[in-house]
Amino acid sequence: MDAISVIRTKRDRGELTPEQIDWVIDAYTRGEVADEQMSALAMAILLNGMNRAEIARWTAAMIASGERMDFSSLSRPTADKHSTGGVGDKITLPLAPLVAACGAAVPQLSGRGLGHTGGTLDKLESIPGWRALLSNEEMLHVLDTTGAVICAAGDGLAPADKKLYALRDVTGTVEAIPLIASSIMSKKIAEGTGSLVLDVKVGSGAFMKNIEDARELASTMVGLGTDHGVRTVALLTDMSTPLGLTAGNALEVRESVEVLAGGGPADVVELTLALAREMLDAAGIKDADPAKALADGSAMDVWRRMIAAQGGDPDAELPVARERHVITAPSTGVLTRLDAYGIGVAAWRLGAGRARKEDPVQAGAGIELHAKPGDEVTAGAPLLTLHTDTPEKFDYALKSLESVYDIAPSGTAFVPDPIVLDRIA
Amino acid sequence: MDAISVIRTKRDRGELTPEQIDWVIDAYTRGEVADEQMSALAMAILLNGMNRAEIARWTAAMIASGERMDFSSLSRPTADKHSTGGVGDKITLPLAPLVAACGAAVPQLSGRGLGHTGGTLDKLESIPGWRALLSNEEMLHVLDTTGAVICAAGDGLAPADKKLYALRDVTGTVEAIPLIASSIMSKKIAEGTGSLVLDVKVGSGAFMKNIEDARELASTMVGLGTDHGVRTVALLTDMSTPLGLTAGNALEVRESVEVLAGGGPADVVELTLALAREMLDAAGIKDADPAKALADGSAMDVWRRMIAAQGGDPDAELPVARERHVITAPSTGVLTRLDAYGIGVAAWRLGAGRARKEDPVQAGAGIELHAKPGDEVTAGAPLLTLHTDTPEKFDYALKSLESVYDIAPSGTAFVPDPIVLDRIA
Repeated sequence: MDAISVIRTKRDRGELTPEQIDWVIDAYTRGEVADEQMSALAMAILLNGMNRAEIARWTAAMIASGERMDFSSLSRPTADKHSTGGVGDKITLPLAPLVAACGAAVPQLSGRGLGHTGGTLDKLESIPGWRALLSNEEMLHVLDTTGAVICAAGDGLAPADKKLYALRDVTGTVEAIPLIASSIMSKKIAEGTGSLVLDVKVGSGAFMKNIEDARELASTMVGLGTDHGVRTVALLTDMSTPLGLTAGNALEVRESVEVLAGGGPADVVELTLALAREMLDAAGIKDADPAKALADGSAMDVWRRMIAAQGGDPDAELPVARERHVITAPSTGVLTRLDAYGIGVAAWRLGAGRARKEDPVQAGAGIELHAKPGDEVTAGAPLLTLHTDTPEKFDYALKSLESVYDIAPSGTAFVPDPIVLDRIA
Repeated sequence: MDAISVIRTKRDRGELTPEQIDWVIDAYTRGEVADEQMSALAMAILLNGMNRAEIARWTAAMIASGERMDFSSLSRPTADKHSTGGVGDKITLPLAPLVAACGAAVPQLSGRGLGHTGGTLDKLESIPGWRALLSNEEMLHVLDTTGAVICAAGDGLAPADKKLYALRDVTGTVEAIPLIASSIMSKKIAEGTGSLVLDVKVGSGAFMKNIEDARELASTMVGLGTDHGVRTVALLTDMSTPLGLTAGNALEVRESVEVLAGGGPADVVELTLALAREMLDAAGIKDADPAKALADGSAMDVWRRMIAAQGGDPDAELPVARERHVITAPSTGVLTRLDAYGIGVAAWRLGAGRARKEDPVQAGAGIELHAKPGDEVTAGAPLLTLHTDTPEKFDYALKSLESVYDIAPSGTAFVPDPIVLDRIA
């Protein structure tokens, strides 16, 4: 077996054999297959595709490259969720404690943000004292005692994926659906959850810009989960406009706490409940009512215990950015568009996100939205508030906001798209 | 400008801009673009192609990565030839002195063999004392005083190509016609010849297995040469059967000297004269008769001077392998097939070629053919003689000879293919 013959097979539109896939993933992890060979193979996969059997084997080989976790000691069924990422996507924060309050164990191994989409860990780190990095034992302990845990994924899960992801990032081979699907699913399956709900975002602020690509990615991942005995469901959800009324770190934690307190923006509540019902259903929990768990404070109780168990103070004041800049509506009318990508880039430029893995993020930076598509706006009233500790960045952030919204004359009929666009099981 | 955006352009079937091409070749040569990025780009080029403008710019950028030679001080017009390589392809050896004897200056910067095709320098190095490595000044001196020089290409010509070729070799991206064409032509144009004849081989023993691919490669290279002011012509020539009656190093030198002495196998003489006429025509030399220059010894005179000028003794005994093994014809009849690839692999396994760049070759190793397609053979008479210093390799070499020939009943009508299949100008 050698790298060139594996590359040639896929280059010439052939099907990789199970032996070729097992060998190339293992040899790449060990360093026998060089980066320049794997990147040529990744480009051939991006351009020539892989069939379902190849993707399944590729995923299995990445799982086999590392350790697997075991949640069988827990007394509750596990329910996991993965989002492909978007602007203002703080859903994990209220969702994990909510589903735990309804009886499931919710392990959320999360990442940091890179580019215009925020990272769940970056958001939670704005809570004073909170720690993302737990040992496997600590993680199991928090999960067992509070019902939910949100923490950084350890290095032991699917190391082949970690290495391959970093390579794809610098070689223009990120956008290969077979590689995206196997990357996400290898970690989720290695993590050992019994059920999984996928939130596949579609729209300008998402990785997948059109619904056909999102549907292909979703059904590939559902197939992979099912093949590995994980009950898997995907929702395709709208990411053409930001979720909720904030994009940033502390700003989104504050909004999440509002949702857990029974309030919060309607779209965040709607998506949180939709995902909670899917997670509970996939975990086999029939009689729970997540809306009640938000209303009666039981989800908030889990949140407070979960934050405290990782060293955070749920009552602490959240950081606030030193400077603000308000953008007002230029005319009175109906807001018909507020572009997720432009808002995400602006929040990132204000300091909420990072350009390189090693950059720090500002806890207080980000954007508040004072209206959402469908709302009436008044000329001169605030439309967006920008927050940052580095006001010299305002001009740079404003550039990405130049054409992010449309206002139609008052009285124009406008019905926003639904949040959940499709369901794939 | 960054590597990922260049890769994405080609990945998404776009046309690379001149600025992108100039930047990526220069940045790769400097090490700013990493091997894993260039290999992803090479795979995207292999699968999505490049148009004529892109290939021309790519070639120009590779030329610009290094030095250019200048033959303008010579009193004669320069005529160069490049072969894409085949089994028994010793044509450069008689051709260079022959064309020089007819009035052109013939610079032949040549390579060593890798895999089943032999290398011109390996063949000449079987002549005691002969040196392949010359300084630019030595090269010009030999060329000026004898009319021809065959030597190793210096490191200064198209260093981007040297780096890229080594990368393609290990990443399954050798077989991209735009990259093959630009690799060959960048070196030939940087070398500074006024005219160029390409011998593009087609068949089992060649790089191009079918005539459509060979024609595309040839017309791409002719276009590149023409665009750079080099009068360029390509002959498509048959490589389904070995050229001449020998494949090896000293064996092929001996056969070349026979041709220079006015004898030698008919196919070698025919192809040598065809290429000589094209080279003289491209160089603007109208009244020369290469057949006469072979017959009257003037080509042999140049050969002797050329070999001596590089330290070789044209009268020295050539090395002979220590061991021989004869394969006899199993039946009487007409030889209708003698496969170039199988013969090339066997010669390579006997020690005439190398598996890795740093391996030595045996001067005496190789294969003698006692018949060519179209010849009558007699049961029990010698068909092939294997030569090697390492007789333990006979079994391994014999494996690749198991089905290299077909013998039809005596009297079967059989007309071999012509040597020259097509001409592209």
